[in-house]
Amino acid sequence: MSIALVGIGKIARDQHLPAIADSDRFALAATVSGSGGIDGVENHADIAALLHARPDIPAVSLCMPPVPRFVAARAAIAAGRHVMLEKPPGASVTEVFRLERLARAAGVSLFATWHSRMAAGVAPARAWLAGKRITRLRIDWKEDVRKWHPGQDWIWQPGGLGVFDPGINALSILTELCPGALHVAEAELTFPANRDTPIAARLTFTDGAGLDATADFDWRQEGGEIWQIEIETDIGALKLTEGGARLFIDGAEQPTAGCGEYPALYRHFATLLAEGRPDVDTAPQLHVADAFLLGRRVTGAPFHD
Amino acid sequence: MSIALVGIGKIARDQHLPAIADSDRFALAATVSGSGGIDGVENHADIAALLHARPDIPAVSLCMPPVPRFVAARAAIAAGRHVMLEKPPGASVTEVFRLERLARAAGVSLFATWHSRMAAGVAPARAWLAGKRITRLRIDWKEDVRKWHPGQDWIWQPGGLGVFDPGINALSILTELCPGALHVAEAELTFPANRDTPIAARLTFTDGAGLDATADFDWRQEGGEIWQIEIETDIGALKLTEGGARLFIDGAEQPTAGCGEYPALYRHFATLLAEGRPDVDTAPQLHVADAFLLGRRVTGAPFHD
Repeated sequence: MSIALVGIGKIARDQHLPAIADSDRFALAATVSGSGGIDGVENHADIAALLHARPDIPAVSLCMPPVPRFVAARAAIAAGRHVMLEKPPGASVTEVFRLERLARAAGVSLFATWHSRMAAGVAPARAWLAGKRITRLRIDWKEDVRKWHPGQDWIWQPGGLGVFDPGINALSILTELCPGALHVAEAELTFPANRDTPIAARLTFTDGAGLDATADFDWRQEGGEIWQIEIETDIGALKLTEGGARLFIDGAEQPTAGCGEYPALYRHFATLLAEGRPDVDTAPQLHVADAFLLGRRVTGAPFHD
Repeated sequence: MSIALVGIGKIARDQHLPAIADSDRFALAATVSGSGGIDGVENHADIAALLHARPDIPAVSLCMPPVPRFVAARAAIAAGRHVMLEKPPGASVTEVFRLERLARAAGVSLFATWHSRMAAGVAPARAWLAGKRITRLRIDWKEDVRKWHPGQDWIWQPGGLGVFDPGINALSILTELCPGALHVAEAELTFPANRDTPIAARLTFTDGAGLDATADFDWRQEGGEIWQIEIETDIGALKLTEGGARLFIDGAEQPTAGCGEYPALYRHFATLLAEGRPDVDTAPQLHVADAFLLGRRVTGAPFHD
């Protein structure tokens, strides 16, 4: 099936293009980029031009930043195309619910992706957790923003999420492991004095029944990233490291299998198209919105790239 | 039907007690208050004590501030009681979705109230708008915080919403008039330098198709409150004033009828109980969470009560 890729930035080049190139379900037919696109691939300056010129392309994958995503997704749905959304699926939660309704009304598939859920350790972790009672949960998601987001100015603009841009990956795993089990009760968000999004955040979750659960997101990490989730249960402890790629149960590493996060996303999108259904889970984004809604804001040192 | 009132503060005394006293469906059987309750009414120090002592009371109405509401609602649902929630229904959006699932699983009714939707002009405004195309929308919701929230320290604490505490009333009317039609695209939130919630907010909404829609919330208003919504359509203009109590179409005041906002809420709660269904609409709260999520924060002058 032909697919068009919209927004040719870092994530498109690092992940989407290789995943589509390796896919046996999708073939890249066109791109949309205001800054030139990719050698040898038909490019359009905006999505309206693409949708007009190529009615034969049934699916689009949107990987521009979240703020402009709604308008593009709405146009694609209105033109009867299936749509895959990079995470987070929008700049607001409400717009994602709106897109879901529009997609259902138009009879097209909408896939709000959470790539970290496809990390190799996540599915076996979820299977292991089933039926166990979680007693303690600790998320550490710390990386050097200069290394992982060089020159990405939009992450510092309102709606760009700041440290929640990586942090939402942890929350997407959390909500996959124990859906509906907890909510943010307290948060402290540290905003650099010269920026509009937080560089660090500490969250405390509650299940309403005494669970000890916290998350620590930090972009000021130096000396190697830490992307891990530790969960203690009534009968053993689980640890996901390296963004969910590796799984340990009671300290022993477990065998995992996976084809890679983005290849798995495109495979799942193909399944959704075949089955004619949407997959839109706003739970990770809702946790972020809740943290902004009820969090205490602290002003930190200015940040300079 | 017996009902217990939990949280005896300003809104309980101003609105809930008179509404229950006038109701032909509910009788106040007990209160929960850490600071004494009401003369002549059985009082319990916390909701656990109430639920334990009075299994015969089938319904509770929770009107404490939003932060402690989840734990109380969860306990009441677990004890098989029907629950009515003051607005906003929680400190986070996720907790409201969690409560809704818990209530459905327990087979009890959960009513997330939005009192402003019961203002006399709202239902006729909605009926008039049906089938019309909105071209411009302007919300002005401005009041003197010293007059309307004297000594209410919790509104300035994280999760207390600040100026969105009244502003969410406007958003509850907006989402009643045109459900699912728009989302917050931009916001500017002004936080007093010494406070954790905003004293003013300007929101810009989008429908994705060029609608001009803004909201202006301000707690620094002097000389009389303004709580109004103006909507222009392809065939005429509507104006709601006084929080929705009065309705004007093309400048001419329209007849309205209503029994009062809180009496109407209790009447609706009785209907929900009779029909055994929940009524939980998180749309107004989602708009607020979105405004915090993607809004630009501005620091303003310190505020002193």
